[in-house]
Amino acid sequence: GKLPFCAMGVSSVIHPKNPHVPTMHFNYRYFEIEEADGTKQWWFGGGTDLTPTYLNEEDAVHFHKTLKEACDKHDLKLYPKYKKWCDDYFYIKHRGERRGIGGIFFDDVDSPSKEEVFQFVKSCAKAVVPCYIPIVKRHCHDSFTPEEKLWQQLRRGRYVEFNLVYDRGTKFGLLTPGSRIESILMSLPLTARWEYMHTPPESSKEAEILEVLRNPKDWVH
Amino acid sequence: GKLPFCAMGVSSVIHPKNPHVPTMHFNYRYFEIEEADGTKQWWFGGGTDLTPTYLNEEDAVHFHKTLKEACDKHDLKLYPKYKKWCDDYFYIKHRGERRGIGGIFFDDVDSPSKEEVFQFVKSCAKAVVPCYIPIVKRHCHDSFTPEEKLWQQLRRGRYVEFNLVYDRGTKFGLLTPGSRIESILMSLPLTARWEYMHTPPESSKEAEILEVLRNPKDWVH
Repeated sequence: GKLPFCAMGVSSVIHPKNPHVPTMHFNYRYFEIEEADGTKQWWFGGGTDLTPTYLNEEDAVHFHKTLKEACDKHDLKLYPKYKKWCDDYFYIKHRGERRGIGGIFFDDVDSPSKEEVFQFVKSCAKAVVPCYIPIVKRHCHDSFTPEEKLWQQLRRGRYVEFNLVYDRGTKFGLLTPGSRIESILMSLPLTARWEYMHTPPESSKEAEILEVLRNPKDWVH
Repeated sequence: GKLPFCAMGVSSVIHPKNPHVPTMHFNYRYFEIEEADGTKQWWFGGGTDLTPTYLNEEDAVHFHKTLKEACDKHDLKLYPKYKKWCDDYFYIKHRGERRGIGGIFFDDVDSPSKEEVFQFVKSCAKAVVPCYIPIVKRHCHDSFTPEEKLWQQLRRGRYVEFNLVYDRGTKFGLLTPGSRIESILMSLPLTARWEYMHTPPESSKEAEILEVLRNPKDWVH
């Protein structure tokens, strides 16, 4: 039968041209449904995550540290829990790789109280700019080679694979009659590339990022 | 429990550089399984389909006519049935478009007899070259503009959407432990593009192909 519901959220993805500036995605959302017996359910979900083409440890630490600080103000258990949830969620199973170097991700959060969760989600949302903008500023004038651009395009292919094959928002969105396809697929990059059997040489910069996508690291201790 | 099975097939996709040369895909396959009680099941599946960037009626008619002739040698009911199956199968639901202008598609075919189905599948496979090569020869030296290349790239984005979201071979392949990912994803184009809210102008060449992707035509009477 029909269930009255209310959903709202904000979602953004930035796919920079320069391969030294990572892709960043965040989404924060709130759901409310009224069940057949009149009881109301509500929950928050969301997260912020980073997808670099090349690994920059300083950037990774800054990004995670900023998210951790936003979480720690509310509960010290949140960052470790939501950091792991992010690594688990953005897993491209058929590649054995994560989409990026993670961040935080959570869903179905309805405790301790609506007000407290809302304050937590606001802290996360406020952390988006300090997480990402310093990284953009640090690298937006970096020069790059055609080979680095090519590797970025191959990584964008993996981004497309994750979003179309696994992402819940995309999958449910595409299945929802009357949904706005253009809003759902705005997360895809402008351009992407696939090459048969592409494997970067051992000890290359390309192999370095693959290693942390295969084995997520703790960036903050 | 475990079921002994045997599967074999040949699959090929060609994504030409020139936007006036259409993408072509074919796949022919044979399955055999032994059930718990020892009875054997077998079936054939496959198809050949064309995905042009721009509509060329003469090419579309040639492609479908060649497939129809291959089918008609075996049973006059086959082409209409498998032409429709192809239009239904390659449907990108969230776009309301087919992937291309179709061809033939069939699966689970186990009658009238293994020998007769095999002869039919052989006729289809032998039709691949005469279906496609004349089209390649006709257009491979056509000049093209950057705008035509861009439209090709946007159409390749839709090809990626179909293959990753809907294609059974891809979906089951990705879910099969130990499957060869590179073989499964070799169907993806080298490059693809997405643009938010891209809509070709009315009466343009781009709108013309969209029209037949939205409303499949009978190319052979």
